[in-house]
Amino acid sequence: MEKPTVGELTPPDRTLMGPGPSEVHPRVLRAMSTPLVGHLDPSFIEVMNDVQDLLRYTFRTDNKWTIPVSGTGSASMEAAIGNVVEPGDTMLVPTNGYFGGRMESMAKRAGSEVVHVDAPWGEPLDPEDVQAAFEEHDPDVFGFVHAETSTGVVQPDVSELTAIAHDHDALVIADCVTSLGGVELRVDEWGIDVAYSGPQKCLSCPPGASPLTLNDRAMDKVLSREEPARSWYLDLSLLEGYWGDERAYHHTAPITNVYALREALRLVAEEGIEARWERHREMAGALKAGVEAMGIEMNAPDDYWLPSLNAVRVPSGVTDTDVTDYLLEQYDLEIATGLGDLDGEIFRIGCMGYSARPETVSYLVSALGDALEKQGADVDVEAGLSATSSALGK
Amino acid sequence: MEKPTVGELTPPDRTLMGPGPSEVHPRVLRAMSTPLVGHLDPSFIEVMNDVQDLLRYTFRTDNKWTIPVSGTGSASMEAAIGNVVEPGDTMLVPTNGYFGGRMESMAKRAGSEVVHVDAPWGEPLDPEDVQAAFEEHDPDVFGFVHAETSTGVVQPDVSELTAIAHDHDALVIADCVTSLGGVELRVDEWGIDVAYSGPQKCLSCPPGASPLTLNDRAMDKVLSREEPARSWYLDLSLLEGYWGDERAYHHTAPITNVYALREALRLVAEEGIEARWERHREMAGALKAGVEAMGIEMNAPDDYWLPSLNAVRVPSGVTDTDVTDYLLEQYDLEIATGLGDLDGEIFRIGCMGYSARPETVSYLVSALGDALEKQGADVDVEAGLSATSSALGK
Repeated sequence: MEKPTVGELTPPDRTLMGPGPSEVHPRVLRAMSTPLVGHLDPSFIEVMNDVQDLLRYTFRTDNKWTIPVSGTGSASMEAAIGNVVEPGDTMLVPTNGYFGGRMESMAKRAGSEVVHVDAPWGEPLDPEDVQAAFEEHDPDVFGFVHAETSTGVVQPDVSELTAIAHDHDALVIADCVTSLGGVELRVDEWGIDVAYSGPQKCLSCPPGASPLTLNDRAMDKVLSREEPARSWYLDLSLLEGYWGDERAYHHTAPITNVYALREALRLVAEEGIEARWERHREMAGALKAGVEAMGIEMNAPDDYWLPSLNAVRVPSGVTDTDVTDYLLEQYDLEIATGLGDLDGEIFRIGCMGYSARPETVSYLVSALGDALEKQGADVDVEAGLSATSSALGK
Repeated sequence: MEKPTVGELTPPDRTLMGPGPSEVHPRVLRAMSTPLVGHLDPSFIEVMNDVQDLLRYTFRTDNKWTIPVSGTGSASMEAAIGNVVEPGDTMLVPTNGYFGGRMESMAKRAGSEVVHVDAPWGEPLDPEDVQAAFEEHDPDVFGFVHAETSTGVVQPDVSELTAIAHDHDALVIADCVTSLGGVELRVDEWGIDVAYSGPQKCLSCPPGASPLTLNDRAMDKVLSREEPARSWYLDLSLLEGYWGDERAYHHTAPITNVYALREALRLVAEEGIEARWERHREMAGALKAGVEAMGIEMNAPDDYWLPSLNAVRVPSGVTDTDVTDYLLEQYDLEIATGLGDLDGEIFRIGCMGYSARPETVSYLVSALGDALEKQGADVDVEAGLSATSSALGK
C-alpha cells in the first residue's frame, strides 16, 4: 500500500448557478474556519439555541421542535419521513417531480404504504386532485414539495392543501429544500406540520446540517410510536435528548456546519426574511426577463414560476450537456441539466441566496447567451442582455 | 415572530483533550473556508478520488469500497450495520462498553436478532468467549469495538477474533472511531470486513464526513440484499452510484467536510501512518507517565491501554464534574467524565491527532494536577510534571 501523493487543494473558482450548492457568503466561509469547541461545551449550547431561534424565524414558525439535522438535505428529509411515518401507515405523495419519488422511496423503507396524487412533471398539485386522493385513500400522512428543484415549479395554495389534509386528520410534510430563505414560506400560517430543508440552497451555507421543524401534533405522533424509527442516527425521540431541554449526548454534532448555519441564518435575519424573498424575486426576475427576451421559454408558467430555480427550455438544435460543459469550461459557471421526465429538455438555473445578486445574474445571462449562440441556437443575445440590465437597473 | 438578535460567533478558545472533537490542524481549518464547487463538478470527482485513496492508505486497505459517509461517526456506524445486517440475521455484539450497546440498537432497528459476547466495561474481549459465543449462536455478523472511547481500552488479538468469525462464515464489523489514524489498525492484514470511523478523533478533522470501508465479501452481501436497507440516505447500494464508477447524483455531498477530510488525510500521509501511531504512543505515554507519577491510576491495564483515549480513575474525595468544570472555567481545557457503567469513576482524556503534541500534553498534566489538588485530592503534582517533562524530553 503506497503512500498516495495528493497535492494542495486547488479547486477552480466557480460561479454557482445550478440547483445547489449556491455560492457561500464570505462571512459563512469564515465561520467554517472557526476553531471548534466540544459538542457538549456550554458555549455550544448557546450556539444551538441561537440556531434554533434563527431557524424558527426563517421557517416562520413557533415550533419548539426546530433543529438542524446532522447531514445534508436528504438526511432532514429522511428524519421527517422516517420518524413521522410508521409501519402500516399510508402516505400520499405527489408524482409531479423528482423529489416526490424520493419521498416515496423513504416512506416505503419506513414501512408505509404509498399512494399517489397525480400531476405531470412541471405542474403543481391541484387541490381538487388532493381532495380526491384523500377521499379515495384516507392517508395518514401527506407529503408535497413546496419548491420542486427538478421542475422549477412552486406549489401555490399551500393552505388549501393542508386544510384538506387536516380535515382528514392527516399530517402534512412539506419539502422546502429550495424555498426556505428564498421563497415565501410560512410554516405556521399555512398549517404545515413538518417542514425540512437543506442549507446549500437559498441559505447559501455549505451542506452538512439541515433544517427541520415539527409542530407538537407531529412530534406527539413521533414520541408515541409503537416501534422505534428505523434509523438510530435520525431518531427524533433520541435527538430530543440533545436538542431539547436535557442537552444530553446522542451523537457528535457537525459543530462547524452548525457554526456556518448560524452565520448564514444571521445574514437572513439581518436582511429580513420578507426582504430576502423580494430580492430573490427581483434577481430571478431579471434573469427570467433576459432569458425570455433572448427568445427562450421558461418551463413553468408564470403562476408557478419558482424564482430560486429557473427551469429554462433547451432551444431546438442544441444539446443540453454541450451548453453546460461549455459554460463550465469557458466561464467557470455551473448550471444543471434536467432530471427524470425532463432530462434533455431543460436547463436548471439556480438563483439562490448569495448567488441571487446582480453580478451573478448579469454574468449568467451573458454567458448563457454566448453558449447558446455558439451551439447554434437562434437566440437574440443583445435583447436578453438589455432586458436583464434594465430589470436590474430598476 | 420577532427577529432574533444574535451576535457575532465568538466561541471560547478551548484546548480539546476530551473524547472528541480533538483540536483541528490550522491547515484543515483553512480548507474548511475554501469556496465550494458543485458535488458533480469534474474537479470534485478528483477530490473524491483523492479522499478515497488517502482513506485506503489510512485504513491500510485495498478495498474499493472506501468512502466518507455524509454525516458524523454514528452515520458511518449505521451505514455499516444498516447495510450489512439484514432482517432475520443474527448479530453478535460486545457488552464491554458504550458503543457495543449502540451497535445493538442499530442492529435491532435493521431487523436483526442480537446476541452478546460478554466482558465487563473496561476489559477487552477474550477470544475464547468469542469462540464460545459463535458456537452457541452461530451469528451472521460479528461487531466489535477496536478502540472503546467509553473505557479507554484497545482490543488486542484482532486477527484471532476475525479468524473465529470467518471460520463460522460470518462478517466482521469493527468500530474504529477512536483508532483510525492514531492507533495501529490494519484492516486487510487483520481480516476486518467492514470498518467505520469518525473524522473528529485521531484525524483531527471537524465532524461531518465519516470514513467507512467494506471489502468485496461484505459489499456482495449488501448488493444482494432481498429488501433494501431501511435508510435511503445511508443505502450503500445507492451510494455506489455516486462514489463508484458512475458518479451519478444520489444526494448532495457535504462538500466542505470532504475538502477538510482530504486535508486532514493529507497530513496523515505526510507524517506517515506508522509514524503517526508512534507519535500517539509517545505523547499519550508522556501524559500517562505524568498522571501515574502524580499517584492517579489508569483505568485500563497497560496491555489494553488506548493511547488516543486515556481513562483515568477519579481519585477518592473528588467529584468528577467539579474537576471538569474547573478545567473548563480556569483553563479553557476540555476533558470528559465517564459514561454508563463508569459514570463518576473515570475521566476520559483524549490524546488524538493535532491534540497529541507536547504543548497540549504538558498543559493537560499541569492543569489536571492543579484541579485535582484544588479539589482536595492527594496528588503529587510536582512528580507528575517532572515525569511528563522527562518523557517529552526523550
